[in-house]
Amino acid sequence: MSAKLPFSSVGIIGSGLIGTSIGLALSKKGVSVTMLDQDSRTQGIAQALMGNQGEEISGAELVIAAVPVSAFPMVITTLERATFKSVLIDVTSIKIKPVLEVSKSSLSSSQFLPTHPMAGREFSGVESARADLFEGRPWMIDSTGVEQQALAWGKALIESLGAQVIDMPAADHDQAVALVSHLPQLISSLLAKQLTGKPASWLELSGGGLRDTTRIAASDPTLWKEIIAANSSAIAPLLKSLASDLNSLVSNIESESFVAGVIKDGQAGIALIPGKHGGKAREYTYLPIVIEDKPGQLAAIFDECAKVSANIEDLSIEHSPGQETGLITLAVSHSDAAILKAHLESEGWDVHAPRS
Amino acid sequence: MSAKLPFSSVGIIGSGLIGTSIGLALSKKGVSVTMLDQDSRTQGIAQALMGNQGEEISGAELVIAAVPVSAFPMVITTLERATFKSVLIDVTSIKIKPVLEVSKSSLSSSQFLPTHPMAGREFSGVESARADLFEGRPWMIDSTGVEQQALAWGKALIESLGAQVIDMPAADHDQAVALVSHLPQLISSLLAKQLTGKPASWLELSGGGLRDTTRIAASDPTLWKEIIAANSSAIAPLLKSLASDLNSLVSNIESESFVAGVIKDGQAGIALIPGKHGGKAREYTYLPIVIEDKPGQLAAIFDECAKVSANIEDLSIEHSPGQETGLITLAVSHSDAAILKAHLESEGWDVHAPRS
Repeated sequence: MSAKLPFSSVGIIGSGLIGTSIGLALSKKGVSVTMLDQDSRTQGIAQALMGNQGEEISGAELVIAAVPVSAFPMVITTLERATFKSVLIDVTSIKIKPVLEVSKSSLSSSQFLPTHPMAGREFSGVESARADLFEGRPWMIDSTGVEQQALAWGKALIESLGAQVIDMPAADHDQAVALVSHLPQLISSLLAKQLTGKPASWLELSGGGLRDTTRIAASDPTLWKEIIAANSSAIAPLLKSLASDLNSLVSNIESESFVAGVIKDGQAGIALIPGKHGGKAREYTYLPIVIEDKPGQLAAIFDECAKVSANIEDLSIEHSPGQETGLITLAVSHSDAAILKAHLESEGWDVHAPRS
Repeated sequence: MSAKLPFSSVGIIGSGLIGTSIGLALSKKGVSVTMLDQDSRTQGIAQALMGNQGEEISGAELVIAAVPVSAFPMVITTLERATFKSVLIDVTSIKIKPVLEVSKSSLSSSQFLPTHPMAGREFSGVESARADLFEGRPWMIDSTGVEQQALAWGKALIESLGAQVIDMPAADHDQAVALVSHLPQLISSLLAKQLTGKPASWLELSGGGLRDTTRIAASDPTLWKEIIAANSSAIAPLLKSLASDLNSLVSNIESESFVAGVIKDGQAGIALIPGKHGGKAREYTYLPIVIEDKPGQLAAIFDECAKVSANIEDLSIEHSPGQETGLITLAVSHSDAAILKAHLESEGWDVHAPRS
């Protein structure tokens, strides 16, 4: 993973979540990264994050297309005009379509590696990018007909980002993501839709289950309408199967044994989801601290962190409804956690038991 | 929150996740807690976790019934035999049923406070208990016809556990949880079921979206079959509405505009889930700032915020260990955003264009 990368300059077309996250990870490894985006503000932030100056994309040894499905043909046109001859990798959400589009272009199909990193967030855009986005995640490639060097570069790229290469034909990929990504997206959106028009007091009772099942309903409609339309033939049978199961449940909702069967079938389903791919999960200790919800408290707490040189890897703030206190949870390394907890407590902070 | 509780001994019938978590939190506050369970091993673990000796339940000032729906009548019988006269609180998942059951018993309805903490985990049982399970969560009560002291005790209990009291009639509660809890549970289970019988290689591509939407599909069938059956009249219309939306989606899956509408409707739905500070999720301006990733930077930035009295409503840090730059995004009110941006820039910070 720490081996030197076989390329030294990369152009990334598309400075959204995925493109910028790839750029961040490669910059860290000393690769010269040029970020492009049709939105100049986005491109500016992305290039600033790289900590180096962008070059002409035509000079890049490797080009990564990190654009929505609908923008991929435009990437092809741009590269055709630049008489681009080197390796092209795409990271779009479906795979049959880009493979066909490259095969119809003047670009070399054997220099094109179709890929798809199974990493994303409900938040899109450059601001959500992070270099460790791909850590421990599966990253699909289709090596069919790809020339040896292009394949080696693609694998080196993926492995250097901490992801796990999974080689499968584009057609299988599109079936698979219909099941593990597109179906959950649509069902989450339909579920979230049921909340509209209901009394606000009902929603006051919302807990973690509702939040988790509807989290991805926050996803971007523009991005998703394209993905779904482009893969509708794989998605439709899955929706029909779920609709049929749902209709049976409606007919049997009063039967305890039927309902128990539905829950058991669900348990059997999630048991099939593989665990982490041996990759490093980001393992931190989470330190919950109850603070007063007023300006200055966060500054004070970070002053304390700085005093003991504890680096905050992540954090979350939870304000309880109507409460004057908030809960801030700091994610720190296991070794920093013990030091920080002792220090904060000695300074009178209300630190609670850490969890891993 | 730190006020002395108005009772000093509590008996908790049912030593599962909820009962034991309540017990842990009360023990920490010096209340003498007696844990009961029909399973003696479970009861033993639960009592050991309390760090004190259990007493006779009949001597407890307050009894909390933390049992599955089907076991509540047994709790009533036990308390009738013990000629229990003090305050009874239940925490079962539905509310019309226990209210009716108490009203038909020889127990005093005015000494019974029906409640439901909106906290749970996909893992059940004594081993999953944690004292902070209720921190910041809504906890429904129905105060209708409840005597003053019983109500005051219940509220003191709930607030001491860090939860937020929400008073609503039992019938409204059962409608509300059908929407925010029971529907998500069933849909999550049905979604997870679709994974069975598919090629294992497809599931290798599973990402965070699938994991989140199916997390609660791990829930206990025995517990859930009772809850669903007891509330089927409220759940059935919601399932039918979702089934109808699903059928429309199947018919229109190839229409980009229809699919975009489904995703947008979902976004509108989750926007109704209350966020911070109780109300509807507030709208903030998000200010992205590129910082050096080293201790002290966060403290410095929050010092700047304090100088202009900008209150940070939320924030995120995006970076990975070892990376030299990080992106911190501060969520502030629209009015604070302009002031803060100007101030930070004058102090030399690398602030990028805000988004709403």
